[in-house]
Amino acid sequence: MTYPDPNTIDRVGVIGAGTIGASWTALFLARGMTVKVFDPSPEGETMVRDYVANAWDSLTKLGQVAENADPDAVSFYTDAAEAARDVPFIQESVPEKIEIKHDVYGQIEPALAPETIIATSSSGLLIKEMQAGLKDPSRLILAHPFNPPHLIPLVELLGNEKTDPAALDWAEGFFEDRCNKQTIRVLKEVPAHVANRLQAALWREAIHLVLEGVASVEDVDKAVVHGPGLRWAVMGPHMLFNLGSGGKGMEMFIERFGPSFKTWWASMGSPELTPEAAKIIADGCRDEEAGRDFQELTAERDRKLVAIMNGTQGN
Amino acid sequence: MTYPDPNTIDRVGVIGAGTIGASWTALFLARGMTVKVFDPSPEGETMVRDYVANAWDSLTKLGQVAENADPDAVSFYTDAAEAARDVPFIQESVPEKIEIKHDVYGQIEPALAPETIIATSSSGLLIKEMQAGLKDPSRLILAHPFNPPHLIPLVELLGNEKTDPAALDWAEGFFEDRCNKQTIRVLKEVPAHVANRLQAALWREAIHLVLEGVASVEDVDKAVVHGPGLRWAVMGPHMLFNLGSGGKGMEMFIERFGPSFKTWWASMGSPELTPEAAKIIADGCRDEEAGRDFQELTAERDRKLVAIMNGTQGN
Repeated sequence: MTYPDPNTIDRVGVIGAGTIGASWTALFLARGMTVKVFDPSPEGETMVRDYVANAWDSLTKLGQVAENADPDAVSFYTDAAEAARDVPFIQESVPEKIEIKHDVYGQIEPALAPETIIATSSSGLLIKEMQAGLKDPSRLILAHPFNPPHLIPLVELLGNEKTDPAALDWAEGFFEDRCNKQTIRVLKEVPAHVANRLQAALWREAIHLVLEGVASVEDVDKAVVHGPGLRWAVMGPHMLFNLGSGGKGMEMFIERFGPSFKTWWASMGSPELTPEAAKIIADGCRDEEAGRDFQELTAERDRKLVAIMNGTQGN
Repeated sequence: MTYPDPNTIDRVGVIGAGTIGASWTALFLARGMTVKVFDPSPEGETMVRDYVANAWDSLTKLGQVAENADPDAVSFYTDAAEAARDVPFIQESVPEKIEIKHDVYGQIEPALAPETIIATSSSGLLIKEMQAGLKDPSRLILAHPFNPPHLIPLVELLGNEKTDPAALDWAEGFFEDRCNKQTIRVLKEVPAHVANRLQAALWREAIHLVLEGVASVEDVDKAVVHGPGLRWAVMGPHMLFNLGSGGKGMEMFIERFGPSFKTWWASMGSPELTPEAAKIIADGCRDEEAGRDFQELTAERDRKLVAIMNGTQGN
């Protein structure tokens, strides 16, 4: 299939407007696109408009708001086919149930131009299962964001043997160049893709350390933020250890420290999230909150994310 | 034991001046202290002076250089007892061999005032084994930094049942208030303490994803830096998931997502660092280097670390 130049895209469809769809809408509007939003809920429009208004300040500070951007260039539909008509690209973020995906694909596909790509935000369903709801499965790709999509640059791209490879290349251009995001290619379908697996691996040992009484929830979090987490915002784990060789290279690093890692890996925990464990972790989080409420904490998180991106990740 | 007010400390001993000892020296000098350095190698002095000169710019940008700081307020000794005399605090960073630790402790202890605390930078030895080299084991604490100590705020503090608890409290005051570091308390001795275990857990799954062909070394690193790593420089894994509940709290997060984590954890890999695996990871790192050499990459890392700390972690 031949697709239009990603840099010329000026209208997109957003199918499903929960918090993920609302965040995508804010991003696409900031990048100067017109956005057609489908959500079956009558509250969808207010929620999305509020979300966009709230996100605009961070997007502005990140330099993501294009000159021609208009936060009101958004229209709302409770008919999915109407939202899908006349757009060259659709980002789908409906709930993670296969029947819901199939139902909405069945509604929108007859309204799509042949070259319209559907990118699903799904984190938990298999591509081939989702493709079963489409007459043309080659148009479906996975473009998995990291919450919130309008702030966090990462988009994981994945297709399968039925996916048009050119659709993935197109999406890389669209997200990287048109949307200023950072994409990776997931080459093989595994549960939770890449970033969520890495998060899960870290959290597993973080929980283990708390449940074993090695450190408090607050101190484990403090260790990450003021230690390895600081470095992971700069470089990934492979490159950091590569530099940890002192310039001798990764083979030397593995030769010298591999046996230590082997011992540590053998001692890693496999905690169970029992109700008792959940209470210990939750109590620890309450201690760490130190009276700050959800709004305060999320505002702090997002303000610092923007500061980091502006400090380290500008072009 | 009664110790002097940590805020009045103006001289310290650094025993062992490899890269860790040299980095500690730079930090203590920046904080306006006089530093007595022991290293058996005749090249020690030149190496440390070069290290300090090189580190001073980052320390200045971080606001860590006190008004009265003098990068030349450092004296060098090839006799460990001389370096240890007349200092209220010693940071020991000699090589990770128990015979070397015991040998140097035997040399310095007779020269120490009764209230002088020895903090070891050791990452791999047991405290009780190290204490066996001291007449007064109560004075030994572990103060484990994260490389490079002059930049990364984290210091992990740990003692055992023979350690004077007041020595740990003192060290918390010294590192947090006098040195502007961030300390955590490791409550139980486990291999690699806290931060290195968390790093090891993440790297294990990162290696697994590469060896399984799910993503390239470069893309795994990119996923961390532009996804979860960004967030870990702001908040730790527990607090981030706590906020991931949308304000409903960690119990609700675990109730809703616990089953998914359980599935993902069951699918985590246990890679072996065989020579073949080492080659795949090392080749991937070379691709990711894209021609940048060790000096360039470490300079980039440190510049971005300083930018992040100034952007997010000021008081």
